[in-house]
Amino acid sequence: MSKPKGFEKPAGVRDYLPFAAEKLRAIERSVLDCMAGWGYRQIMTPTMEYYDTVGVASSTSDRKLFKLLNNRGTTIVLRSDMTAPIARVVSSMLKEEPLPLRLSYHANVFRAIEEEAGREAEFFQTGVELVGDDSPEADAEVVALAVASLKAAGVKSFKIALGHVGFLNGLLEEAIPGREEDREILKEGLLHRDYVGYRETLAGLALSERQREELEGILRLRGGKEICKQALELSGNALAREAVQHLSAVWDALEDYGVAPQHVMIDLTMIGDFSYYTGMTFEGYAAELGFPVCSGGRYDNLLQQFGRPAPATGFALKTSRILDGVEGIDVVRELPLLLQYDAANRKRAFAEAERLRDEGRSVILRRVEGPAEKLGETVAKEIKSGPLGPAYGEIRTYTSF
Amino acid sequence: MSKPKGFEKPAGVRDYLPFAAEKLRAIERSVLDCMAGWGYRQIMTPTMEYYDTVGVASSTSDRKLFKLLNNRGTTIVLRSDMTAPIARVVSSMLKEEPLPLRLSYHANVFRAIEEEAGREAEFFQTGVELVGDDSPEADAEVVALAVASLKAAGVKSFKIALGHVGFLNGLLEEAIPGREEDREILKEGLLHRDYVGYRETLAGLALSERQREELEGILRLRGGKEICKQALELSGNALAREAVQHLSAVWDALEDYGVAPQHVMIDLTMIGDFSYYTGMTFEGYAAELGFPVCSGGRYDNLLQQFGRPAPATGFALKTSRILDGVEGIDVVRELPLLLQYDAANRKRAFAEAERLRDEGRSVILRRVEGPAEKLGETVAKEIKSGPLGPAYGEIRTYTSF
Repeated sequence: MSKPKGFEKPAGVRDYLPFAAEKLRAIERSVLDCMAGWGYRQIMTPTMEYYDTVGVASSTSDRKLFKLLNNRGTTIVLRSDMTAPIARVVSSMLKEEPLPLRLSYHANVFRAIEEEAGREAEFFQTGVELVGDDSPEADAEVVALAVASLKAAGVKSFKIALGHVGFLNGLLEEAIPGREEDREILKEGLLHRDYVGYRETLAGLALSERQREELEGILRLRGGKEICKQALELSGNALAREAVQHLSAVWDALEDYGVAPQHVMIDLTMIGDFSYYTGMTFEGYAAELGFPVCSGGRYDNLLQQFGRPAPATGFALKTSRILDGVEGIDVVRELPLLLQYDAANRKRAFAEAERLRDEGRSVILRRVEGPAEKLGETVAKEIKSGPLGPAYGEIRTYTSF
Repeated sequence: MSKPKGFEKPAGVRDYLPFAAEKLRAIERSVLDCMAGWGYRQIMTPTMEYYDTVGVASSTSDRKLFKLLNNRGTTIVLRSDMTAPIARVVSSMLKEEPLPLRLSYHANVFRAIEEEAGREAEFFQTGVELVGDDSPEADAEVVALAVASLKAAGVKSFKIALGHVGFLNGLLEEAIPGREEDREILKEGLLHRDYVGYRETLAGLALSERQREELEGILRLRGGKEICKQALELSGNALAREAVQHLSAVWDALEDYGVAPQHVMIDLTMIGDFSYYTGMTFEGYAAELGFPVCSGGRYDNLLQQFGRPAPATGFALKTSRILDGVEGIDVVRELPLLLQYDAANRKRAFAEAERLRDEGRSVILRRVEGPAEKLGETVAKEIKSGPLGPAYGEIRTYTSF
């Protein structure tokens, strides 16, 4: 193994140069302002958490957690999401605060990457948690806020797919009772949206005609509200039916919000990729991007792991990905004014810079020597385009020559 | 060793609850806006860096670096400052960009803590780097910008002390040539501002009368510009004299900026606590706080470690500390409006919420059941003060009862 070169950085992490940093900041500000408009208040938690508490409670698989030992020999993880840390805070420092609680965040999270190309080891998420409300209206609120947040982030054309953990669990349990292993294989196929593989798995299982129909029927359960009715026809399982009824109520509230059907669809083949989800789950897809731009869902059992049992629902935008993919946020940067001065005019130039900055201008100061004509020649060169774009929008020169 | 409890977090890290998070955000925004006014553009770098590159180049001692192994067995560190990562970026992704370069950042940094109480393992810094300018004006610019940034952060009464690495090195070398070990002990005393210990060390050393006078004289070198003259009288060493002349030129420029002598003093006893400093160093102290609120200095040899030799100077505010100590930033939060509705009025309430949010109001929605009079009773209770302060500023109820 060769030593890393002086300018190298670890795999899966990135530098945000000024253009990207300014755009990320603009998205962050716009989305957090949107969330504040819905009554969500910002919270920040540490990068490092105990493995035995937040690490174990998080939905990230063990091998994807970044681990280190602190100087007491305790295992520390770099947070892999913000949901578990916020559950910890709600159960400790905020335990006297009455529910429901509405909290928002913008934070970097960490996942130890495998050798897959393009996976990020550190990336930004912007999200909310709504703790202490188990109603369909609470689920609808976070979905409607996800729609508003994606718009605020500059994503123009997108659709949010709603699913429910209980529907698939109930239907599979009913269709092939006792066959835990087969159910896991089928769920794995659905998780990766590998419908061909799902059908192949079905073909290889010993199933009755009725079972096969029911399990194949799942794949058709994607569309508008009519899907809820079809799902009720497909399954008589109590858990599955309850799930569909909840989802139907969420849909109705989303119609009242004016976001369904325009921005929302139902996709009962969808399993949330987080192990702590217990109810509705959702994922947002942008037309111009080939990957999810947000994901969320209900997690009613997580808080009790931290000692304060409460239902909860929330979502996170995949902000780093949105940054790379969307054109909807314009960062308008006023180019700085370059104020050149010689020794005799320094004080005057500094005073003028202060005056201009107080007016909101961006001013760069530069001491020069030599006659003004010579300085004039450099002006054309200075208003140039480097990797960071034009350096100055205007140049003024204060010299005594 | 007992397992951490469910709600515990590692030593030295903190949660920022909404009040603190909002205040930190306000300081961050205000300071970054100030820096943008001076032509500094934001940059963001990853939390994790290679130990062999940025870790070694940083000024943090090895035992204070958080280390972990990535899945290739390479040692990774959590960044302990932003100066070394930015030097890496300037030498790689920005290597085509002409100098001088002005970059700003707001970032969390990490230091493995010892058992000392109150030390933070993760904290925020907000700072700038000015790369490619070795003039006294460049040093004066970062000091003047530190003054402007502290004001922008809400610090009201503060003083920045200027020192110079070259002065102390030159004077000590001249006073007790060849006695490297004695010099290190004396410098250690000065670094910790342990003047009593410094005098005791002096008393224990074999010194001529002239040497003793010269070394004791250092302790008097704190004050205004007159200190530069006194320092030139004290030492004939070329390195020391050059340092004082540079500092004197920085002071003159700071007078032209209008920040000296009001916010600046000279303190030639001061050694920057970063090993990479090569010239002027400075530290800011707030009257109301018992610790430095910013520190900075010139580091002309760091960039060449990353392959692009260039002089550089910069500083960082200790933003987390400022957050706890200052009252100068007011976070005015508009209390949300609670909009209560029953089933029949849901759509109307959602539309009204959207209208109010578009106007910039913060609106929380709540579904209620039961007659309006009963709801009225809860109103007084709801506009209450919990740990997070009053929940609502106003309550409106849309019901059909």
